[in-house]
Amino acid sequence: MFRDAGGRDEALATMTGQFREWLRPRLRDGSYFGFVMSDDGAPVAGIGLMLIDWPPHPAHPMQDKRGYVLNVFVEPDYRKRGLARELMKLAEAEFVRRGVGYAVLHATAKGRPLYQGLGWNGTTEMAKTLDGER
Amino acid sequence: MFRDAGGRDEALATMTGQFREWLRPRLRDGSYFGFVMSDDGAPVAGIGLMLIDWPPHPAHPMQDKRGYVLNVFVEPDYRKRGLARELMKLAEAEFVRRGVGYAVLHATAKGRPLYQGLGWNGTTEMAKTLDGER
Repeated sequence: MFRDAGGRDEALATMTGQFREWLRPRLRDGSYFGFVMSDDGAPVAGIGLMLIDWPPHPAHPMQDKRGYVLNVFVEPDYRKRGLARELMKLAEAEFVRRGVGYAVLHATAKGRPLYQGLGWNGTTEMAKTLDGER
Repeated sequence: MFRDAGGRDEALATMTGQFREWLRPRLRDGSYFGFVMSDDGAPVAGIGLMLIDWPPHPAHPMQDKRGYVLNVFVEPDYRKRGLARELMKLAEAEFVRRGVGYAVLHATAKGRPLYQGLGWNGTTEMAKTLDGER
Protein backbone atom coordinates (compact mmCIF):
# COMPACT_ATOMS: atom_id res chain seq x y z
CA MET A 1 0.00 0.00 0.00
CA PHE A 2 2.71 2.48 0.95
CA ARG A 3 4.75 1.55 -2.12
CA ASP A 4 1.68 2.08 -4.26
CA ALA A 5 1.39 5.54 -2.65
CA GLY A 6 4.95 6.40 -3.68
CA GLY A 7 6.97 5.29 -0.65
CA ARG A 8 10.68 4.58 -0.92
CA ASP A 9 11.61 0.90 -0.70
CA GLU A 10 14.34 1.40 1.89
CA ALA A 11 12.15 3.12 4.47
CA LEU A 12 9.32 0.72 3.73
CA ALA A 13 11.50 -2.33 4.32
CA THR A 14 12.40 -1.07 7.81
CA MET A 15 8.81 -0.23 8.57
CA THR A 16 7.48 -3.54 7.31
CA GLY A 17 9.62 -5.52 9.73
CA GLN A 18 8.65 -3.28 12.63
CA PHE A 19 5.00 -3.33 11.62
CA ARG A 20 4.95 -7.12 11.47
CA GLU A 21 6.30 -7.31 15.03
CA TRP A 22 3.82 -4.70 16.15
CA LEU A 23 0.92 -6.46 14.43
CA ARG A 24 1.40 -10.00 15.69
CA PRO A 25 0.22 -9.56 19.31
CA ARG A 26 -2.57 -7.22 18.20
CA LEU A 27 -3.97 -9.70 15.71
CA ARG A 28 -3.83 -12.29 18.46
CA ASP A 29 -5.67 -10.20 21.07
CA GLY A 30 -8.12 -8.77 18.53
CA SER A 31 -7.17 -5.12 18.98
CA TYR A 32 -6.29 -5.02 15.26
CA PHE A 33 -9.14 -6.44 13.25
CA GLY A 34 -10.64 -6.01 9.80
CA PHE A 35 -11.79 -7.72 6.66
CA VAL A 36 -10.14 -9.57 3.82
CA MET A 37 -11.86 -10.35 0.53
CA SER A 38 -10.65 -13.36 -1.34
CA ASP A 39 -11.10 -14.77 -4.79
CA ASP A 40 -10.80 -18.53 -5.04
CA GLY A 41 -8.93 -18.59 -1.74
CA ALA A 42 -6.46 -15.81 -2.59
CA PRO A 43 -6.72 -12.49 -0.74
CA VAL A 44 -7.47 -9.65 -3.16
CA ALA A 45 -8.55 -6.76 -0.93
CA GLY A 46 -8.27 -5.88 2.73
CA ILE A 47 -8.89 -3.28 5.39
CA GLY A 48 -7.45 -2.92 8.89
CA LEU A 49 -9.34 -1.47 11.84
CA MET A 50 -8.52 -0.43 15.37
CA LEU A 51 -10.15 1.38 18.24
CA ILE A 52 -7.70 4.02 19.38
CA ASP A 53 -7.73 5.66 22.80
CA TRP A 54 -8.57 9.31 22.52
CA PRO A 55 -9.61 11.98 25.01
CA PRO A 56 -13.33 12.82 25.05
CA HIS A 57 -13.75 15.46 22.34
CA PRO A 58 -16.59 17.63 21.00
CA ALA A 59 -17.00 15.13 18.14
CA HIS A 60 -17.40 12.28 20.67
CA PRO A 61 -18.06 13.90 24.06
CA MET A 62 -19.08 10.67 25.83
CA GLN A 63 -16.40 8.42 24.42
CA ASP A 64 -12.69 7.97 24.93
CA LYS A 65 -12.18 5.98 21.74
CA ARG A 66 -12.15 6.61 18.00
CA GLY A 67 -12.25 4.12 15.20
CA TYR A 68 -9.17 4.08 12.98
CA VAL A 69 -9.10 2.69 9.44
CA LEU A 70 -5.76 1.69 7.98
CA ASN A 71 -4.13 -0.49 5.37
CA VAL A 72 -6.92 -0.29 2.82
CA PHE A 73 -5.64 -2.12 -0.23
CA VAL A 74 -7.09 -3.71 -3.35
CA GLU A 75 -4.89 -5.76 -5.65
CA PRO A 76 -4.46 -3.94 -8.98
CA ASP A 77 -6.36 -6.54 -11.01
CA TYR A 78 -9.38 -6.15 -8.73
CA ARG A 79 -9.74 -2.38 -8.75
CA LYS A 80 -12.64 -0.36 -10.18
CA ARG A 81 -15.17 -2.92 -9.00
CA GLY A 82 -16.26 -1.22 -5.78
CA LEU A 83 -14.36 -3.54 -3.41
CA ALA A 84 -12.81 -0.70 -1.39
CA ARG A 85 -16.22 0.88 -1.06
CA GLU A 86 -17.65 -2.40 0.23
CA LEU A 87 -14.76 -2.75 2.68
CA MET A 88 -15.40 0.77 3.98
CA LYS A 89 -19.08 0.01 4.48
CA LEU A 90 -18.16 -3.14 6.41
CA ALA A 91 -15.71 -1.07 8.46
CA GLU A 92 -18.24 1.61 9.35
CA ALA A 93 -20.81 -1.00 10.34
CA GLU A 94 -18.23 -2.81 12.47
CA PHE A 95 -17.36 0.40 14.33
CA VAL A 96 -21.03 1.05 14.99
CA ARG A 97 -21.49 -2.55 16.15
CA ARG A 98 -18.64 -1.96 18.61
CA GLY A 99 -20.32 1.22 19.81
CA VAL A 100 -17.98 3.76 18.23
CA GLY A 101 -19.45 6.86 16.62
CA TYR A 102 -16.43 8.73 15.28
CA ALA A 103 -13.66 7.39 13.09
CA VAL A 104 -10.58 8.67 11.31
CA LEU A 105 -8.20 7.54 8.59
CA HIS A 106 -5.33 8.92 6.55
CA ALA A 107 -6.10 8.96 2.85
CA THR A 108 -3.82 8.57 -0.10
CA ALA A 109 -4.52 10.97 -2.97
CA LYS A 110 -5.96 7.99 -4.83
CA GLY A 111 -8.26 7.00 -1.99
CA ARG A 112 -9.56 10.44 -1.12
CA PRO A 113 -12.49 10.62 -3.59
CA LEU A 114 -13.78 7.27 -2.40
CA TYR A 115 -13.83 8.39 1.22
CA GLN A 116 -15.37 11.73 0.34
CA GLY A 117 -18.14 9.94 -1.53
CA LEU A 118 -18.88 8.01 1.65
CA GLY A 119 -19.18 11.16 3.76
CA TRP A 120 -15.65 11.42 5.14
CA ASN A 121 -14.15 14.91 5.38
CA GLY A 122 -10.68 16.33 5.84
CA THR A 123 -9.64 17.30 9.37
CA THR A 124 -7.34 20.00 10.72
CA GLU A 125 -4.59 17.56 11.67
CA MET A 126 -1.03 18.84 11.30
CA ALA A 127 2.22 16.96 11.79
CA LYS A 128 5.92 17.60 12.21
CA THR A 129 8.99 15.41 11.98
CA LEU A 130 11.24 16.14 14.97
CA ASP A 131 14.85 15.43 15.75
CA GLY A 132 14.07 12.42 17.95
CA GLU A 133 14.22 8.78 16.94
CA ARG A 134 11.82 7.60 14.30
CA MET B 1 -10.31 26.32 24.28
CA PHE B 2 -13.15 24.57 22.45
CA ARG B 3 -15.54 27.41 23.31
CA ASP B 4 -13.00 29.89 21.96
CA ALA B 5 -12.98 27.82 18.75
CA GLY B 6 -16.75 28.14 18.40
CA GLY B 7 -17.99 25.05 20.25
CA ARG B 8 -21.56 24.87 21.57
CA ASP B 9 -21.85 25.09 25.35
CA GLU B 10 -24.13 22.07 25.70
CA ALA B 11 -21.82 19.60 23.96
CA LEU B 12 -18.82 21.14 25.71
CA ALA B 13 -20.39 20.72 29.15
CA THR B 14 -20.83 16.98 28.53
CA MET B 15 -17.34 16.66 27.17
CA THR B 16 -15.75 18.61 30.00
CA GLY B 17 -17.11 16.23 32.64
CA GLN B 18 -15.99 13.20 30.65
CA PHE B 19 -12.62 14.74 29.93
CA ARG B 20 -12.01 15.50 33.60
CA GLU B 21 -12.68 11.84 34.50
CA TRP B 22 -10.46 10.72 31.66
CA LEU B 23 -7.67 13.11 32.63
CA ARG B 24 -7.38 12.38 36.34
CA PRO B 25 -5.66 8.95 36.17
CA ARG B 26 -3.51 10.08 33.24
CA LEU B 27 -2.20 13.12 35.09
CA ARG B 28 -1.45 10.84 38.01
CA ASP B 29 0.46 8.22 35.99
CA GLY B 30 2.18 10.85 33.83
CA SER B 31 0.78 9.68 30.50
CA TYR B 32 -0.74 13.16 30.06
CA PHE B 33 1.91 15.79 30.68
CA GLY B 34 2.68 19.29 29.53
CA PHE B 35 3.52 22.82 30.58
CA VAL B 36 1.69 25.65 32.30
CA MET B 37 2.91 29.23 32.32
CA SER B 38 1.87 31.35 35.23
CA ASP B 39 1.92 35.02 36.07
CA ASP B 40 2.17 35.82 39.75
CA GLY B 41 0.92 32.34 40.58
CA ALA B 42 -2.05 32.33 38.20
CA PRO B 43 -1.99 30.03 35.13
CA VAL B 44 -2.11 32.07 31.92
CA ALA B 45 -1.11 29.58 29.21
CA GLY B 46 -0.88 25.83 28.90
CA ILE B 47 -0.19 22.91 26.59
CA GLY B 48 -1.04 19.23 26.97
CA LEU B 49 1.10 16.41 25.61
CA MET B 50 0.76 12.67 25.21
CA LEU B 51 2.56 9.82 23.53
CA ILE B 52 -0.03 7.91 21.54
CA ASP B 53 0.35 4.31 20.39
CA TRP B 54 0.58 4.12 16.64
CA PRO B 55 1.62 1.43 14.18
CA PRO B 56 5.12 1.83 12.71
CA HIS B 57 4.65 4.11 9.72
CA PRO B 58 6.86 5.50 6.93
CA ALA B 59 7.13 8.76 8.92
CA HIS B 60 8.39 6.79 11.94
CA PRO B 61 9.38 3.33 10.71
CA MET B 62 11.18 2.29 13.91
CA GLN B 63 8.67 3.61 16.39
CA ASP B 64 5.21 2.62 17.54
CA LYS B 65 4.47 5.98 19.15
CA ARG B 66 3.68 9.53 18.06
CA GLY B 67 3.65 12.67 20.09
CA TYR B 68 0.28 14.38 20.37
CA VAL B 69 -0.19 18.05 21.27
CA LEU B 70 -3.57 19.11 22.65
CA ASN B 71 -5.27 21.77 24.71
CA VAL B 72 -3.02 24.66 23.69
CA PHE B 73 -4.51 27.73 25.30
CA VAL B 74 -3.40 31.25 26.17
CA GLU B 75 -5.64 33.50 28.26
CA PRO B 76 -6.93 36.39 26.11
CA ASP B 77 -5.03 39.06 28.06
CA TYR B 78 -1.75 37.23 27.44
CA ARG B 79 -1.99 36.70 23.69
CA LYS B 80 0.27 38.21 21.02
CA ARG B 81 3.35 37.86 23.22
CA GLY B 82 4.69 34.60 21.81
CA LEU B 83 3.62 32.38 24.71
CA ALA B 84 2.02 29.71 22.49
CA ARG B 85 5.16 29.64 20.40
CA GLU B 86 7.28 29.12 23.51
CA LEU B 87 4.95 26.35 24.68
CA MET B 88 5.27 24.63 21.30
CA LYS B 89 9.05 24.81 21.48
CA LEU B 90 8.97 23.28 24.95
CA ALA B 91 6.62 20.58 23.64
CA GLU B 92 8.84 19.67 20.70
CA ALA B 93 11.92 19.52 22.93
CA GLU B 94 10.05 17.34 25.41
CA PHE B 95 9.05 14.88 22.70
CA VAL B 96 12.65 14.68 21.51
CA ARG B 97 13.82 14.19 25.11
CA ARG B 98 11.40 11.27 25.36
CA GLY B 99 12.75 9.83 22.12
CA VAL B 100 9.82 10.63 19.84
CA GLY B 101 10.48 11.94 16.34
CA TYR B 102 7.03 12.49 14.88
CA ALA B 103 4.17 14.42 16.39
CA VAL B 104 0.67 15.49 15.42
CA LEU B 105 -1.96 17.95 16.58
CA HIS B 106 -5.32 19.30 15.49
CA ALA B 107 -5.22 23.02 14.81
CA THR B 108 -7.91 25.62 15.22
CA ALA B 109 -8.10 28.13 12.37
CA LYS B 110 -6.57 30.65 14.77
CA GLY B 111 -3.68 28.38 15.72
CA ARG B 112 -2.79 27.17 12.25
CA PRO B 113 -0.41 29.99 11.21
CA LEU B 114 1.58 29.58 14.42
CA TYR B 115 2.09 25.87 13.80
CA GLN B 116 2.92 26.43 10.14
CA GLY B 117 5.54 28.95 11.15
CA LEU B 118 7.13 26.27 13.33
CA GLY B 119 7.31 23.75 10.49
CA TRP B 120 4.09 21.84 11.04
CA ASN B 121 2.14 20.81 7.93
CA GLY B 122 -1.38 19.61 7.22
CA THR B 123 -1.91 15.86 6.93
CA THR B 124 -4.32 13.76 4.88
CA GLU B 125 -6.46 12.80 7.87
CA MET B 126 -10.17 12.42 7.20
CA ALA B 127 -12.97 11.75 9.67
CA LYS B 128 -16.60 10.68 9.74
CA THR B 129 -19.28 10.78 12.39
CA LEU B 130 -21.05 7.42 12.47
CA ASP B 131 -24.35 6.23 13.88
CA GLY B 132 -22.74 4.68 16.97
CA GLU B 133 -22.49 6.23 20.42
CA ARG B 134 -20.41 9.35 20.81
